[in-house]
Amino acid sequence: MLMSSEEYRESLRRLSPRIFVDGRAVESVADDPAFVPGVNAVGITYDFALRPEHQMLMTARQGTSGKTVNRMLHINESSTDLLYKLEAVRLVCQESGCAQRYVTHDMLNGLYQATKLADDRFGTEYHGRLVEYLHHVQDNDLAVGGAMTDAKGDRSKRPGAQSQRDVYVHIRERRRDGIVIRGTKAIVTGAPYMHEFLVMPCRTMTKEDADFAVCCAVPVDAPGITMVARPAGRPGEAAAKFSGKYGQSTAVVLFDDVFVPWERVFLAGEHEEAGVATTSYATHHRHSCIGARAGFGDLLIGAGALMIEANGLDPSRHAHIREAMVELIKIVEGFYACGVAASVYALKDPAGSVMPDVVFSNIGKLLLATQIYDMHRLAHYVSGGLVVSLPGPDEDHNPHTEASLSAVLAGREDIPATQRLEVSRFIEDLTASYQAGWYSVISLHGGGSPEAMKREIWRNYPIADKTALVERLLDRGVLAEGRRVSKQPGRCCATGCEVPEVIGTDAVPSRV
Amino acid sequence: MLMSSEEYRESLRRLSPRIFVDGRAVESVADDPAFVPGVNAVGITYDFALRPEHQMLMTARQGTSGKTVNRMLHINESSTDLLYKLEAVRLVCQESGCAQRYVTHDMLNGLYQATKLADDRFGTEYHGRLVEYLHHVQDNDLAVGGAMTDAKGDRSKRPGAQSQRDVYVHIRERRRDGIVIRGTKAIVTGAPYMHEFLVMPCRTMTKEDADFAVCCAVPVDAPGITMVARPAGRPGEAAAKFSGKYGQSTAVVLFDDVFVPWERVFLAGEHEEAGVATTSYATHHRHSCIGARAGFGDLLIGAGALMIEANGLDPSRHAHIREAMVELIKIVEGFYACGVAASVYALKDPAGSVMPDVVFSNIGKLLLATQIYDMHRLAHYVSGGLVVSLPGPDEDHNPHTEASLSAVLAGREDIPATQRLEVSRFIEDLTASYQAGWYSVISLHGGGSPEAMKREIWRNYPIADKTALVERLLDRGVLAEGRRVSKQPGRCCATGCEVPEVIGTDAVPSRV
Amino acid sequence: MLMSSEEYRESLRRLSPRIFVDGRAVESVADDPAFVPGVNAVGITYDFALRPEHQMLMTARQGTSGKTVNRMLHINESSTDLLYKLEAVRLVCQESGCAQRYVTHDMLNGLYQATKLADDRFGTEYHGRLVEYLHHVQDNDLAVGGAMTDAKGDRSKRPGAQSQRDVYVHIRERRRDGIVIRGTKAIVTGAPYMHEFLVMPCRTMTKEDADFAVCCAVPVDAPGITMVARPAGRPGEAAAKFSGKYGQSTAVVLFDDVFVPWERVFLAGEHEEAGVATTSYATHHRHSCIGARAGFGDLLIGAGALMIEANGLDPSRHAHIREAMVELIKIVEGFYACGVAASVYALKDPAGSVMPDVVFSNIGKLLLATQIYDMHRLAHYVSGGLVVSLPGPDEDHNPHTEASLSAVLAGREDIPATQRLEVSRFIEDLTASYQAGWYSVISLHGGGSPEAMKREIWRNYPIADKTALVERLLDRGVLAEGRRVSKQPGRCCATGCEVPEVIGTDAVPSRV
Amino acid sequence: MLMSSEEYRESLRRLSPRIFVDGRAVESVADDPAFVPGVNAVGITYDFALRPEHQMLMTARQGTSGKTVNRMLHINESSTDLLYKLEAVRLVCQESGCAQRYVTHDMLNGLYQATKLADDRFGTEYHGRLVEYLHHVQDNDLAVGGAMTDAKGDRSKRPGAQSQRDVYVHIRERRRDGIVIRGTKAIVTGAPYMHEFLVMPCRTMTKEDADFAVCCAVPVDAPGITMVARPAGRPGEAAAKFSGKYGQSTAVVLFDDVFVPWERVFLAGEHEEAGVATTSYATHHRHSCIGARAGFGDLLIGAGALMIEANGLDPSRHAHIREAMVELIKIVEGFYACGVAASVYALKDPAGSVMPDVVFSNIGKLLLATQIYDMHRLAHYVSGGLVVSLPGPDEDHNPHTEASLSAVLAGREDIPATQRLEVSRFIEDLTASYQAGWYSVISLHGGGSPEAMKREIWRNYPIADKTALVERLLDRGVLAEGRRVSKQPGRCCATGCEVPEVIGTDAVPSRV
Repeated sequence: MLMSSEEYRESLRRLSPRIFVDGRAVESVADDPAFVPGVNAVGITYDFALRPEHQMLMTARQGTSGKTVNRMLHINESSTDLLYKLEAVRLVCQESGCAQRYVTHDMLNGLYQATKLADDRFGTEYHGRLVEYLHHVQDNDLAVGGAMTDAKGDRSKRPGAQSQRDVYVHIRERRRDGIVIRGTKAIVTGAPYMHEFLVMPCRTMTKEDADFAVCCAVPVDAPGITMVARPAGRPGEAAAKFSGKYGQSTAVVLFDDVFVPWERVFLAGEHEEAGVATTSYATHHRHSCIGARAGFGDLLIGAGALMIEANGLDPSRHAHIREAMVELIKIVEGFYACGVAASVYALKDPAGSVMPDVVFSNIGKLLLATQIYDMHRLAHYVSGGLVVSLPGPDEDHNPHTEASLSAVLAGREDIPATQRLEVSRFIEDLTASYQAGWYSVISLHGGGSPEAMKREIWRNYPIADKTALVERLLDRGVLAEGRRVSKQPGRCCATGCEVPEVIGTDAVPSRV
Repeated sequence: MLMSSEEYRESLRRLSPRIFVDGRAVESVADDPAFVPGVNAVGITYDFALRPEHQMLMTARQGTSGKTVNRMLHINESSTDLLYKLEAVRLVCQESGCAQRYVTHDMLNGLYQATKLADDRFGTEYHGRLVEYLHHVQDNDLAVGGAMTDAKGDRSKRPGAQSQRDVYVHIRERRRDGIVIRGTKAIVTGAPYMHEFLVMPCRTMTKEDADFAVCCAVPVDAPGITMVARPAGRPGEAAAKFSGKYGQSTAVVLFDDVFVPWERVFLAGEHEEAGVATTSYATHHRHSCIGARAGFGDLLIGAGALMIEANGLDPSRHAHIREAMVELIKIVEGFYACGVAASVYALKDPAGSVMPDVVFSNIGKLLLATQIYDMHRLAHYVSGGLVVSLPGPDEDHNPHTEASLSAVLAGREDIPATQRLEVSRFIEDLTASYQAGWYSVISLHGGGSPEAMKREIWRNYPIADKTALVERLLDRGVLAEGRRVSKQPGRCCATGCEVPEVIGTDAVPSRV
Repeated sequence: MLMSSEEYRESLRRLSPRIFVDGRAVESVADDPAFVPGVNAVGITYDFALRPEHQMLMTARQGTSGKTVNRMLHINESSTDLLYKLEAVRLVCQESGCAQRYVTHDMLNGLYQATKLADDRFGTEYHGRLVEYLHHVQDNDLAVGGAMTDAKGDRSKRPGAQSQRDVYVHIRERRRDGIVIRGTKAIVTGAPYMHEFLVMPCRTMTKEDADFAVCCAVPVDAPGITMVARPAGRPGEAAAKFSGKYGQSTAVVLFDDVFVPWERVFLAGEHEEAGVATTSYATHHRHSCIGARAGFGDLLIGAGALMIEANGLDPSRHAHIREAMVELIKIVEGFYACGVAASVYALKDPAGSVMPDVVFSNIGKLLLATQIYDMHRLAHYVSGGLVVSLPGPDEDHNPHTEASLSAVLAGREDIPATQRLEVSRFIEDLTASYQAGWYSVISLHGGGSPEAMKREIWRNYPIADKTALVERLLDRGVLAEGRRVSKQPGRCCATGCEVPEVIGTDAVPSRV
Repeated sequence: MLMSSEEYRESLRRLSPRIFVDGRAVESVADDPAFVPGVNAVGITYDFALRPEHQMLMTARQGTSGKTVNRMLHINESSTDLLYKLEAVRLVCQESGCAQRYVTHDMLNGLYQATKLADDRFGTEYHGRLVEYLHHVQDNDLAVGGAMTDAKGDRSKRPGAQSQRDVYVHIRERRRDGIVIRGTKAIVTGAPYMHEFLVMPCRTMTKEDADFAVCCAVPVDAPGITMVARPAGRPGEAAAKFSGKYGQSTAVVLFDDVFVPWERVFLAGEHEEAGVATTSYATHHRHSCIGARAGFGDLLIGAGALMIEANGLDPSRHAHIREAMVELIKIVEGFYACGVAASVYALKDPAGSVMPDVVFSNIGKLLLATQIYDMHRLAHYVSGGLVVSLPGPDEDHNPHTEASLSAVLAGREDIPATQRLEVSRFIEDLTASYQAGWYSVISLHGGGSPEAMKREIWRNYPIADKTALVERLLDRGVLAEGRRVSKQPGRCCATGCEVPEVIGTDAVPSRV
């Protein structure tokens, strides 16, 4: 059952989470102005899945059930799935900035892989439970928040070594019917307007920290859960041309001895498999981030081009303006290409699903993490100083100043001042407001810091293939006899993954 | 007479400018909450000049009068003056973010040079008038706003070719007793809490646009002047740990047939000399910007180090954190060094004053213009995601959440959560708020866009010296006879400027 | 018929081109020491196509003939073809540095598209001729040189406006049986050891320069052709661990009234279609360059890792060394990803062939063009100063020094000095020799300068889609009704190209 | 006594060092073609000191003796000394590429500081000995090689822990009349054509490695010394337009039980003071490197401008060419500015000499270390592909091709082909030859790797001042009372160094 955004809003009214925002308690999440932009943004993932023109990207057939589900809840089975997910994320984010719901996708896919591993090793029943939960989420078309980032406390100490144990979520008690969890998830995107939370560790754990290796699902209004949230976007601010409509709240989520029945527990102490869940999630999520930030890039490219036009400039004639626009495009499509490559060189998992290539996913996320700042710079460069010096919207209808301002604040003669100011505020909103800062920081740190990505790249790159290549070249002179080939037959040289022996029809998603 | 910040505040109350902010009229600038951070920031330039420990940097002896004046109003006579001005700007900006008043300095110095040129060529009396005005400003220790950036209209057309003539300020009428000016200055920093405005063109003009080549001074409450302003900083926002105290307003300043008596007119139609005024101002101002943004850099470096500490990390052990801090330092001191070099290789002007070296000043400004974004990135990198996800300050005293939050949001055990949150909000304010965007954009576009600086660098670099060097090396083999030396005796090789023949005592500002 | 490298060598002995190198005439190209590295490098494309393990990548079925041909001579029909070509180029270049022969591929594919256009427009017979020529080249497995880059003369003037007309190749005479061409191609890679040349313009032409719009094929020993070549690589230099074996010659090729029969003329004055040939070639070629330089990157990554090991360092423990290696990987796989994405979003041509996506191909080439210098920097960074200070190979067997040197020039105890020195020389050869400079400059300028790529990116990017997106968001508030969607149904959002409506089997080249 | 280059050559003939190059023994260094470019380059430092127009920069008055000495041998006493040394190094390097002799300066200055420290602590007589040696060097105007970079062996082990002890130079025996040293210095620039060597450690030492903490001077022909050298530059290569004339040899210098009398021993086991010698040397040397590479930059800027002209392009009209030239200038003058700032903020040493500011010196060297690669890129960018594809010089007089080539290889009509080719080869030599690789690697690793500089920057930056600033701003609101000022009176804010209380005459080296 695919919901519309209206049905999604209605469904939120049936839950009673405990939420505080700006020091006050929230009555109805769906109706509180502080969260309207967040509900709108998530709503896009619902409405777009119902539009005929987007169904190919926004929905998919779930292999385990045969049902058509929202792609944000789907377990990938092919490179095409990954590429379509990537495109779908870009699509919803170029509309909403950040639509949150691919986080759900990324967690479900990560757990799909890790639970299978645990069952194979320990004879547990996690995978079956997870599949059941997956169908529940898909059938009800739920929005599920990713409760991962712990408060962490002292960054130089492991979870179990913290003086304040609650800085990480952990199992406090194991009962016959379930577990009791406790602790703090410090940054949960979209938390207030979710239906449920998926709890997962934010780092790999050692044996000593096994109690911290817990994966489970809980409704947002389970007893013991409190959220302390920030507003979503910049609700109610007249100058917020974009983030007045769309934005994301983040919340600190406090788990104060929350009971989770076994059927919603997906790992409980299997620290190695929890590590797999976390790193697999990270790979899926970094791949999604690439699509998300490319959508954000589309907004900057479009707005930049409109601002240039309103200023009376023409990139074909003004070389430095064209240079900046091309640089912006280069950045956006450059990291997006890594998402495409990660889809193409997908890795088949023992669970039957596929994961994007780790190296390409991490490189793409690493590129966007640092280059989001350059994107802001370039948008400012092509727009000019007006974006931060324009009088506020309250001035637009001040009878003392309105006429004079609109006479002199236009740029090109045939584009009215109001239109120029609107684009200018749109760019200010995206690149020079609190919301701009938020996009920067989540790009940099969301899904792991750059250092985490660098370690993943190093850990996964087939260095041995490259050293073998050079050693062979040094030993042997001109290749004459064809022996000692470093590449295995049927392996691509890019990342060492396998190339299919036989290519049937050519179904790469392209015009071909 | 040097004023204190309190006297400055009081002096503002004696003026009656017409100002609108957020759609409402301003009664008293000094008392309006919207401008408190701006008045505070400018106030720093007053108070610091009175402190014994800062007098060497913050005051100077004006050669034309022999009086001690605020350095922000001084005409430079030596490399040391330039270096001290640079240090002084850094000093007031590391306290206030942006203290505005070096703009006054930069305009006065630019006009000092240009009026001399005009008088020498046309036998006019501009220079004498300017000196008289200078003494008036110094004696009364005034804050004078730089009314330069015109609204500009269609960027592809020159001033005289605009369909709406008022997008540039111009002379509308020449009378026996003065001139009448009209038009719009779109971005005037600190406008509401200035005593006077210095009006200057923001670009070089052709003969056809001579009416736009006008430099003059007017009180802020001269008849016909209207300001439409933005608030200074983020007044009244509890989360604004820095810009709640210090910030700058910018205003659109509308000149609706404003009369200026001849004694306050410093150029009126001399388009070539007005071009000199503009480019000389630009050089002085870019030099000042270097000091200003280095002060901003000091704030980021200090806050970043505190955040790292609160997170429990140690740059000596965590290489990637040290790497980021060193990168931040490299950027800040790297562009600051250009300001120092521009001071050392100062250029003596026929008017008897000195100007910083053009190439080094422009390079320094160009470096900071683009690297301000990297500075934000690095501050975010070392701080972590908390800076944009922390619950708002209203939550700090919410009885339902206060205890839990402060228990889990601390980092290192010995640093209380409140302290960590305070630094976190400080960094958010400087790097992820509207104010952060403002600092970025003024760094990028303030004092001219990067393209303008590149053109100045190209126009002023001694390319001929370098081609002569290579041609000589190609023609002649090993230098044996000592003839055809491209460098003149006594000229530095860096930028071709002269080295003094005799060095007396060694008075470079250093520990030596 | 697929040749072996031995047969290729033999085939060269049957031709009699007029070639000068280092001031002397060449007797037999296949046997002249100056060209051995070039013949070796091209030979790799022959031998690898015969190896079972490489046949999937190195050969393909030509649609027009049904025959299996070397992939370097194949007309692409699908995204998979493009991806396999990309992989194949990487494969041969990680072995040989630069194997030249993809140039042939790129020209044939460009002409395949352009001749179809010309025929459709003018009713000419170029396409049929080209197909016939294509089969001739494929059936004889020829090496065909790309004679494109004209000498150009004064860069600020168009071909027809040059004082010396011969700086561009042009049609001097049109006869009943063919044309006579004249002029200079200044940089033809691998020229001496090719079988034929394909002549094409290196820029778009105007109507006035129609005589310069000529595409045709000639044997290398056609009367009137003279080549003035540089040696291939660094033949005979003991220190040249890589480029003593593999390298490419470039030659100035002088066409002194060379006759070309009509059956080898593919365009002759159709300046617009010649422009298409040039830009299509450029797209194919930039795509190939991505694969080529990724292969070069593989060599640096492998050699860097070996050098680190020999120095006794461990990237897992020494963070700054790991950082540099990850940066190197990020660059190489980052631009490679653009090649993959360009393959996936292939563009179907009216001629029935496919072309890589223009935007991604140009971004990938642009990235490698500038980052090749960073690749050198990183290789030096991880290797240390030894790579340029090591005593020369003649010292290796000097009885006076050999023992002492090998005792003290080892790094890690278990790796002998000779092994360390060998890797060190390998890196010097690739990054600090004439050959290193050659790789840099061809990366930067080969296939067009960065400015040319930027213009192509700007010309081809779907800016209108992005401005439509922003305009819609500004006009309409929350998307409620689903009208005015900027994206066409079935179009990817990345670059605006079409997504197939139905996906059959999932045949993306991956492990799936 | 200042020598001329001719006298320097003659003086070399009076020494008999044991040298091997390319596997053969060297008879007379001054006459061996392999070292001519090196002797020429060092010769520049002699001849320029005799030219009246360069005496201000190239000579100085030695305070301890009152004599006029070559600046390359002078102990700095003031900021002006440091600035003039910087300019002098740029001057000799823009002529010679690298003139080696500032290494002597840097070692003497480092030892001047460290020996004073040791004497103060241990009552030794090192400083007096050093001064005596200094006068010997100055009076005889010697060239003294810096024997610092040990062979190092396994990089992960300290000197004393190496299995092969001779990978570092160390004291093997202490005798009544002197010491015996043994071991290997792996990279000694200019070694063959020096008069003496100064031996110093290349790293800080622990107490356990005290025998490795040795500083002393030896003649190049002392018994037991063997050099295994590379040729200086590219002697005898016709295409080497620059490095055929000027270049530097590097040598491995083997010390096989070399006796050093006590009067030439400057530290022998004082490991902490030896550490000071090494880091002080490093600061002086990094400061010198800034001047050296700026001189190299002058060559690229000049040659680039000539090439652009020869190609018929005009940076005023072709924006992307101007952009690249400005980028090149920005890099060169950007790091040079750090050298200027390091001179201005000089640090007075207890020994009475001055040292450049550590932070600015390290930043400048760090900037040039990585940006040398960008300098190559930009030089290639503005020059075009010809620099690596031009036929070799032997072709210039080949009667079969000479006429044709010179007709078509010209660019702009009024500049003959020969002139264009000459500049092209000059650029190839500097940026795409072995010599180019050498300049890159010594820029990157010479004087310590980038990681070493980053650690020095971190170790020396006044972080505490910056955290105090932010803590004060957080605690106290608007500065009202003037207490708790973080800056000490009379200290510059840039790097925390002291500002002189009284400025007498204004003697900064500038036009003022």
